[in-house]
Amino acid sequence: MDGKASDMENKSAKKDEAVLSIEQIYECEEVPGWREQLTFRAFVVSFMLCVMFSVIVMKLNLTTGIVPSQNISAGLRGFFFVKIWTKLLEKSRLLKQPFTRQENTVIQTCVVAASSIASSGGFGSYLLGMSEKIANQTTEKNGPQNIKNPALGWMIGFFFVISFLGLFSAVALRKIMIIDYKLTYPSGTATAHLINIFHTPQGMKLAKKQVKALVKFLSFSFIWGFVQWIFRAGHDCGFSYFPAFGLEAYKNRFYLDFSASYVGIGMICPYIVNISLLVGSILSWGILWPLIGTKKGDWYVADLGPDNLHGLQGYRVFIAIAIILGDSLYNFFKVISITTSSFLQKMREKDTNVIPVINQLSPTKPSMSYDDHRRTELFLKDQIPTRVAVGCYIAIAAISIATLPHIFPQLKWYYVLVVYIFAPVLAFSNAYGFGLTDWSLASTYGKLAIFTIGAWAGASHGGVLAGLASCGVMFNIVQTAADLMGDCKTGYLTLASPRSMFVSQVIGTTMGCVIAPCIFWLFYKAFHDIGTPGTEYPAPYALIYRNMAILGVDGFSSLPKHCLTLCYMFFAGAIIINLVRDVVGKRVARMERLIPLPMAMAIPFYIGPYFAIDMCVGSLILFIWQQTNKAKADKFAPAVAAGLICGDGIWTLPQSVLALANVYPPICMKFLSRNQERKVESFLAKLS
Amino acid sequence: MDGKASDMENKSAKKDEAVLSIEQIYECEEVPGWREQLTFRAFVVSFMLCVMFSVIVMKLNLTTGIVPSQNISAGLRGFFFVKIWTKLLEKSRLLKQPFTRQENTVIQTCVVAASSIASSGGFGSYLLGMSEKIANQTTEKNGPQNIKNPALGWMIGFFFVISFLGLFSAVALRKIMIIDYKLTYPSGTATAHLINIFHTPQGMKLAKKQVKALVKFLSFSFIWGFVQWIFRAGHDCGFSYFPAFGLEAYKNRFYLDFSASYVGIGMICPYIVNISLLVGSILSWGILWPLIGTKKGDWYVADLGPDNLHGLQGYRVFIAIAIILGDSLYNFFKVISITTSSFLQKMREKDTNVIPVINQLSPTKPSMSYDDHRRTELFLKDQIPTRVAVGCYIAIAAISIATLPHIFPQLKWYYVLVVYIFAPVLAFSNAYGFGLTDWSLASTYGKLAIFTIGAWAGASHGGVLAGLASCGVMFNIVQTAADLMGDCKTGYLTLASPRSMFVSQVIGTTMGCVIAPCIFWLFYKAFHDIGTPGTEYPAPYALIYRNMAILGVDGFSSLPKHCLTLCYMFFAGAIIINLVRDVVGKRVARMERLIPLPMAMAIPFYIGPYFAIDMCVGSLILFIWQQTNKAKADKFAPAVAAGLICGDGIWTLPQSVLALANVYPPICMKFLSRNQERKVESFLAKLS
Repeated sequence: MDGKASDMENKSAKKDEAVLSIEQIYECEEVPGWREQLTFRAFVVSFMLCVMFSVIVMKLNLTTGIVPSQNISAGLRGFFFVKIWTKLLEKSRLLKQPFTRQENTVIQTCVVAASSIASSGGFGSYLLGMSEKIANQTTEKNGPQNIKNPALGWMIGFFFVISFLGLFSAVALRKIMIIDYKLTYPSGTATAHLINIFHTPQGMKLAKKQVKALVKFLSFSFIWGFVQWIFRAGHDCGFSYFPAFGLEAYKNRFYLDFSASYVGIGMICPYIVNISLLVGSILSWGILWPLIGTKKGDWYVADLGPDNLHGLQGYRVFIAIAIILGDSLYNFFKVISITTSSFLQKMREKDTNVIPVINQLSPTKPSMSYDDHRRTELFLKDQIPTRVAVGCYIAIAAISIATLPHIFPQLKWYYVLVVYIFAPVLAFSNAYGFGLTDWSLASTYGKLAIFTIGAWAGASHGGVLAGLASCGVMFNIVQTAADLMGDCKTGYLTLASPRSMFVSQVIGTTMGCVIAPCIFWLFYKAFHDIGTPGTEYPAPYALIYRNMAILGVDGFSSLPKHCLTLCYMFFAGAIIINLVRDVVGKRVARMERLIPLPMAMAIPFYIGPYFAIDMCVGSLILFIWQQTNKAKADKFAPAVAAGLICGDGIWTLPQSVLALANVYPPICMKFLSRNQERKVESFLAKLS
Repeated sequence: MDGKASDMENKSAKKDEAVLSIEQIYECEEVPGWREQLTFRAFVVSFMLCVMFSVIVMKLNLTTGIVPSQNISAGLRGFFFVKIWTKLLEKSRLLKQPFTRQENTVIQTCVVAASSIASSGGFGSYLLGMSEKIANQTTEKNGPQNIKNPALGWMIGFFFVISFLGLFSAVALRKIMIIDYKLTYPSGTATAHLINIFHTPQGMKLAKKQVKALVKFLSFSFIWGFVQWIFRAGHDCGFSYFPAFGLEAYKNRFYLDFSASYVGIGMICPYIVNISLLVGSILSWGILWPLIGTKKGDWYVADLGPDNLHGLQGYRVFIAIAIILGDSLYNFFKVISITTSSFLQKMREKDTNVIPVINQLSPTKPSMSYDDHRRTELFLKDQIPTRVAVGCYIAIAAISIATLPHIFPQLKWYYVLVVYIFAPVLAFSNAYGFGLTDWSLASTYGKLAIFTIGAWAGASHGGVLAGLASCGVMFNIVQTAADLMGDCKTGYLTLASPRSMFVSQVIGTTMGCVIAPCIFWLFYKAFHDIGTPGTEYPAPYALIYRNMAILGVDGFSSLPKHCLTLCYMFFAGAIIINLVRDVVGKRVARMERLIPLPMAMAIPFYIGPYFAIDMCVGSLILFIWQQTNKAKADKFAPAVAAGLICGDGIWTLPQSVLALANVYPPICMKFLSRNQERKVESFLAKLS
């Protein structure tokens, strides 16, 4: 009986531990001050990782143009590098400072800031699209006023004057996005889980189990990534194009792409986000596009390529932008009005308490958990005042407005000014959407800039070049805002100081502004066939972007019929839905959960429903799990989701390496209709 | 605390119940006498099911020639029919006798016996191959002495004189196979699990959980069957041809066919069977066939079809037969010698105890469980004496020898005599192999008959027809022996009396002998294009069988080079391995488990490794499950396996119905190499 009793005690001890939250587990560890979080070794490691990532990203930019996001593997590889470093130092007894999770987050954020320039710098798209080589592949608007060949000098200068703006708009927004709106930032959250779990103080049983779950699903997701790769030889091949709902639905992008990441992201995102995505998918790809498709030849010219903005793609891109803008503007002005009114109230009452603002923004806010409380406290402690951020933004914008016309004479100073006035709204909008769904639509905003600025300038005044350059400016700001906001979420969840994060982002961005153009320059000088179709470095997006800019100079009039009208309707619709959400939500809390979010609805309008289906699968799994075992689901679902996301994320490294080494998948798993199959069968029989 | 204590008591009560075995659960129910197991309603239901199955099977026979096994769905549908019947009677208070699992088994065995004639009666293969229509499609040996057109009269007579032989050889063998050798008969076992679980006395918690597990995996397997079907439009398409080990391995039939059945079968079969299958696969398709393939053009003519017995296929078929014959003969003579010696001993000691025989056959027999004890007891109670079975076999064989030459004048009485002398050995061999691996190789033995008898008769004496007719005789005997042995296993596991099973089999066979030819005759008269290529009823196997018979008359000399030598070697090898197993096994019990079974090794020699891989996956799952939770695995693995097997089995009904309704799968999931993909891509682009 004694053995049994002690066994039961043991069990109850386990239970007590099992209810500990992450920050309760970490309670025994002191959080280092923000200066201690910034170590020399962290930046050395970041530099090395940044160079590595930039080379990988650059090569992919210039070959296929498809670059998998490297954010997650950054965190993990940062961990391994520093872990090896500290292990070595520990052995030689030179270790002065232990490796903390905050330091890990600092590395993560620095690497992301640095390598995001390589991926959003347009080396394979808009920047290369300005060059003579690409211009000569088109038949119109390729005069000297629409050409600028790459050179190391102006590129570094260009990035220095534009890249810090995204950083400062991110600083100004982060309290709103992370504390007030409590957005998810799925991959940022997953990275934080990874970091938290890897740094867990030893001897915690629950954490061990969570580590086990995470590692298990991480390995599964990694292996699954590999398996998917094997069957992806060629166009439309492999599990990523699995027509689970039939070939007709597949044509409307309703299919399963078996992405472990997005299933994991679906598990992290609130149900309403996933439902909104699904509603948006059905509305757009299920109803709207097929309907517009029947007007082919009437509303738009019939014989256009699938990516031509004059055709169906025009409706997709611009209606999506209209909804996103409607939602963003609504939320932007809501935040401004609440902030202003609270500011005025404060002025009157001389009260420095910020709580009212939070309460007003999230009316159904539940009482704060211990973790949330501690995280919010530390996040708000080392804040950088919004005034400083806004001031810096204006200062840098001023420098930029003065400098950019010297680099691109076609880009007049007032174009840049307009871009910089609208950029914060769009950065807000992109950071908001990214926080909800993990999709950054930076390239869509870039296209918007191409269209508006290009049309404004006109072809004869170098509108193509002005469009491409303003695309770069816009792209960079909104992408950086989203990326860094994801990092801030990681920082929030790992108790990293916002101040150390900011410093790390500044250092990272500086690194990136130098490293990325240098690496591009190396490629550009080493391989003379960059940008030539059919060679090893075709950089296909360079031509696509230039073509878009050529279309852009014709202005909105070149949009297909009724496109603008539809845009206005959806813009208004987004605002109305938000109003209804706020009005009804204040009265009936339950109703708010049933009204979809326009921002989330808009993303599949442009991209297609396949990722939304993955995310709904994730939701479904979580829902069933919660129904069968709520306690277990709540404890392990974040670890499982993080495992799924991170495994897929880590697979991008070997995948990139394989692509660099010209190793291609061996098998194509193709889906044919019965009819096609018969023809292909006889064709293959003839071949052999 | 009180609540807790009672909760714990509750748990221990559950535990006690959890350790109950199936027969302990059923202990409260009396087993009806063998006469009560045979009810009128059972045979009415059987008749209806038999007609239904025969129509389905016949249609498939005459269209694609590929007929999924219907055994499992027979048991289940029998259950539902009788259940509805008894429910109706219960409501009208006319029910005199409850529906027992024994009655269910009786229906199952009757339906299998009856519909096995439709599937092994050669209506789409050897029987139709005798007709003028098929003969005219070949260029040689189509004279009148090699032609016999189908007619209702002689077909019914033919089946009556040949079909009961398989039945009696099964009766003689069943004690050896089921009690002494304890063979698995995976689908028979699965059916028994299904029947046992559906009839479980109410209120048993464990059984409920098992039912839940079974139903869950049954539904999964059924749905999976449907999903697989969707992607199977066309040749080499779908999950059934998934090149999990690459396209090179695929060419040697090393691939995953994602068959839920075979994974389940692998979970039921002992590890050594699955390992033997894998060893055999590697030996044949991994080493031997590729090696022989390099001798193409030297050892055999290069330009032969893949199914031509003059080519590589000849090595496959005949080497497999050689191994199987070696193993079977060894075991056959072992059984005979032990039985004789025990008989002599009995004569001397006047001792009626049968235990020594059992002990000698299975030297490592573990002590019997309660279930085994009870089952064995009931199985042996109503035995039909071997003497009776042998006597009947000889009597029927005599009638058959006298009758068959009247139906086929080309089939001399001494040919039939020879077939009947060897048939028991081959029936033994097929029943043994079927018990180990669930593969019946009846068609292979049929081919053996075509070759030997055809060659013996020679072309000028109607060798083609003699070959085809003897193929039918052989095919029927060995197929029936295997099928009925599987049913006996079901009967053994559901405590059905061997005597009622026998009666049911006799009635079933009688039904089949009339129903199957009648249904064929209906088809034959209704559709005049049966057997014409390119029509709705091409019956492709008819021509294949006739061509085989045409080759057969040339005798063994027409086999490819060194084929016979290799056959001798493998024949000897099979005997040596058996000898080693017996000699070593008697000394070191552990070693026996490491020496593969030649019978199991031989099956992939002919069929290919893909199903062996499925079965090993099943083994692996079971192994991992047993490692993590032995108690749970032992309790639920049989239910899970039965669910997997039965779900797939039940799917054959809707699948057959879809085929009958000319509904074809919509999508082809095709696997192409990188190179092929590129060509197909441009071909498809040209098409659209």
